[in-house]
Amino acid sequence: NNYFKIAVLPGDGIGPEIISESIKILDVIAEAFQCKFHFDYGLIGAEAIFKTGNPLPEETLKICKDSDAVLFGAIGDPVFDNNPEAKVRPEQGLLKLRKELGLFANIRPLKTYPSLIDKSPLKREIIDGADIQIFRELVSGIYFGEKFTDPEGEYAYDVCKYSREDIIPIAHMAFQEAQKRKKKLTLIDKANVLDTSRLWRKTCQEIAPEYPDVQLDYMFVDNAAMQLILNPKHFDVILTENMFGDIISDEASVIGGSIGLLPSASVGEKNALFEPIHGSYPQAKGKGIANPIASILSVAMMLDHLNLQAAADKLRQSVEHAIENKYVTIDLNTKQYYSTSEVGSFIADHI
Amino acid sequence: NNYFKIAVLPGDGIGPEIISESIKILDVIAEAFQCKFHFDYGLIGAEAIFKTGNPLPEETLKICKDSDAVLFGAIGDPVFDNNPEAKVRPEQGLLKLRKELGLFANIRPLKTYPSLIDKSPLKREIIDGADIQIFRELVSGIYFGEKFTDPEGEYAYDVCKYSREDIIPIAHMAFQEAQKRKKKLTLIDKANVLDTSRLWRKTCQEIAPEYPDVQLDYMFVDNAAMQLILNPKHFDVILTENMFGDIISDEASVIGGSIGLLPSASVGEKNALFEPIHGSYPQAKGKGIANPIASILSVAMMLDHLNLQAAADKLRQSVEHAIENKYVTIDLNTKQYYSTSEVGSFIADHI
Ligand SMILES: CC(C)[C@H](C(=O)O)[C@@H](O)C(=O)O
Ligand SMILES: CC(C)[C@H](C(=O)O)[C@@H](O)C(=O)O
Repeated sequence: NNYFKIAVLPGDGIGPEIISESIKILDVIAEAFQCKFHFDYGLIGAEAIFKTGNPLPEETLKICKDSDAVLFGAIGDPVFDNNPEAKVRPEQGLLKLRKELGLFANIRPLKTYPSLIDKSPLKREIIDGADIQIFRELVSGIYFGEKFTDPEGEYAYDVCKYSREDIIPIAHMAFQEAQKRKKKLTLIDKANVLDTSRLWRKTCQEIAPEYPDVQLDYMFVDNAAMQLILNPKHFDVILTENMFGDIISDEASVIGGSIGLLPSASVGEKNALFEPIHGSYPQAKGKGIANPIASILSVAMMLDHLNLQAAADKLRQSVEHAIENKYVTIDLNTKQYYSTSEVGSFIADHI
Repeated sequence: NNYFKIAVLPGDGIGPEIISESIKILDVIAEAFQCKFHFDYGLIGAEAIFKTGNPLPEETLKICKDSDAVLFGAIGDPVFDNNPEAKVRPEQGLLKLRKELGLFANIRPLKTYPSLIDKSPLKREIIDGADIQIFRELVSGIYFGEKFTDPEGEYAYDVCKYSREDIIPIAHMAFQEAQKRKKKLTLIDKANVLDTSRLWRKTCQEIAPEYPDVQLDYMFVDNAAMQLILNPKHFDVILTENMFGDIISDEASVIGGSIGLLPSASVGEKNALFEPIHGSYPQAKGKGIANPIASILSVAMMLDHLNLQAAADKLRQSVEHAIENKYVTIDLNTKQYYSTSEVGSFIADHI
C-alpha cells in the first residue's frame, strides 16, 4: 500500500504554521519514497468554535475516522483559559477526538541531542544519554470521568475512574516496548492514596509474568517528579495514567532542552494521531518563530505507523542534520536562528 | 506564654532518627530562650499498625489535639507499598490526622543555599536566587473524596471534590503571604479540563480584588511542571490543590539541591503540624545517614508558629552555619560527611 489518507487538523495558535511545515515534509517524502498522501483538512479547537460553535465538528470527526492517520497541530486559546465560566472550550475538541477514536495510548519518546545538551536547564552529566519512552493512558481517568459543578457554584467534582480493561492494553504495549529496549518498566502512580492507582499496580502485577525478561518497578508520582530531574537515566519505559502522564511528560520535556522538539503518537485499535507535545503557544502565533521540529518528528512517528520505515529513518536523519548544523529556530539558538518555514525547508531539502 | 505542649510522632523509617535531633535542638532552645517544651510521644503509621493494628491510634489523635504543635517524622513502609490489597496502610494515619486536625494548608518554603547551589541537578544560573513559597491544600480533593474498588476488582474510582469553603481560607493565606513577599501569586490548576480547577480559578478571581497589590496569574499544572525547572525564578507564591501540590512541591525540591533540607508546616484553625517534606526513606533506616535538617527547619517553622521568633531566627542561622561550614550529611557532601546525630549536635551547639 502506498496511498494514505491523512486527516490534517492544524488547530489553534502556532498549529497552522507548524503543520504547513509538516505538509511540506510529506510532499517531499511522497516524491522521494514513491507514495501518495491525500490530505483532508478539518477544523478543531478554538478555530472550530469561532467558525461553527463546536470544538469538534462532525465533519472533522468523520475525516479522522476515515483516515489512515491524523496529523494534529495544537489546541487552546487564552480567551477560554481565563474564563472559568465558558461552557464550550477548545480542549473539549481534542479530548472528544481522542475518546471517539479510542486513542488509548499516548507515546512520548524523549532523548537528548548532543549539540543541544547545553540548552537544558539540567547539567550535562545528569541528562547525557537519557532516553525515556513514556506511555500515558489517554482516554480514561479524571479527564473523562463524571464532572459536576453545582448550579450555585458552591462545589464541584471530577471523578477519576479506571477499569482493568482500560489498563490492560496499554500495559501490554509498555511491557512490549520495554522488551525492545532496556527491559525496565516503571509504573508511576499514587498507590499509597488512590484506589485507582492500586488497580493499576495490581493489574500490572498480574501481567508482569508474561514478560519475565522485563523488570517492573513502581514509583509514587511525587517521587517520580523528583527522580525525573535528579536522575533521568534511571528510567527506560514509563507507564502511567492520564493526569499523571500529562504532568510527568511535560516535566520530562526539559531534559531535551526544548519542548519544541518533542513529538507524540496517540494510538488506538483503528486510528492514530500524531501531535507535538507542546501547546498552541498563542504569544508566538503568526510570528514565524515556532519550532516546527516537534511536529515534523510527529510525522516521523506517523511514517513508522504507516510502515514507511525508510522514510521515517530518513526524516529523523534530516532533523538531526538540521539540529547538528544549528539550522534551528530561536528557542534553540538565540544568536543565530531561522524562521519556522526556513527550518522546515532545510529539513525538506535534506530529504 | 513560655510553656508548650508538643506532640511528637516519629513514625516510620528514618523518622525516629531525625526526630531525636529535633528534640535535641528543642532542649537547647528551651534553655537558651527560657521556655519549656513538654513532649508527648505518639505512635503513627506502619509502626502503629504493627503495634496496635491502627495507623492512627485514638491516643495519638488525642495528644495531637491537646498540643500546641505536632512534630512529625515520616511515614510509609515498602511492605504496604507493594501490596495493593492491603486494607490498612501507614499513610491513612497521616491523612486522617491531617483531616481530624483540620490542617488545611501545607506550606513549603523553598530556597537555595549559596554553598549548596552546585549540588542541584539544575544549572547555577537557573536556580541562583530562586525563592518560592508553596501553599498546598491538604484536607480535600482526590485524597479525601469518595474512593471505591468494586469487590470483583474490575474497576475503581477516586473522587476529587472541592467546595468554595475548602478554597477560600487557603487562598486568603496565600494572597497574604504574597503581600509580604514579591506580590505575585500563581494558581496552578488544570482549568482547561477539570471542573474543580475551574472552581479554584473562579474563587481566586473573586478574592483577588481584596488584594489589589498582588498580581494573580494562572498556570496549567503540566506547564507549571515544566516552568518550575526551566525558570524557577518566575515563581513567588504558588497556590494549588492537594494532588498537584504533592507532585509540584516534591518536584520543586530539586531546586535546592536536596530534599533533605526542606521543611513544611501544615496549619489549621486550631492545630499545626511540622514535618520534613521527605518521606520515610526506609533504605536508610538505622544507618545514621539521614539528613536531619529538613526536620530541624520544620522545628524553626514550629517556633515561628509558637511566636518564638528569636529562637526561630537563631535556629535558622545555626542551620546555615552548619551548611556553610560543610557540616552536613552524605547526601550533601559525599567527600566529607557527618552522621545524622553529629549534624544535629553541631547545630545544637551553635545555638
Ligand atoms: C490541551 C490539553 C487538554 C492536553 C491534555 O491535558 O491532555 C495537553 O496538555 C496534552 O498533554 O496533550
Ligand atoms: C505520605 C503521603 C500520603 C503524603 C502525601 O501524598 O500527601 C506525602 O507524599 C506528603 O507529601 O506529605
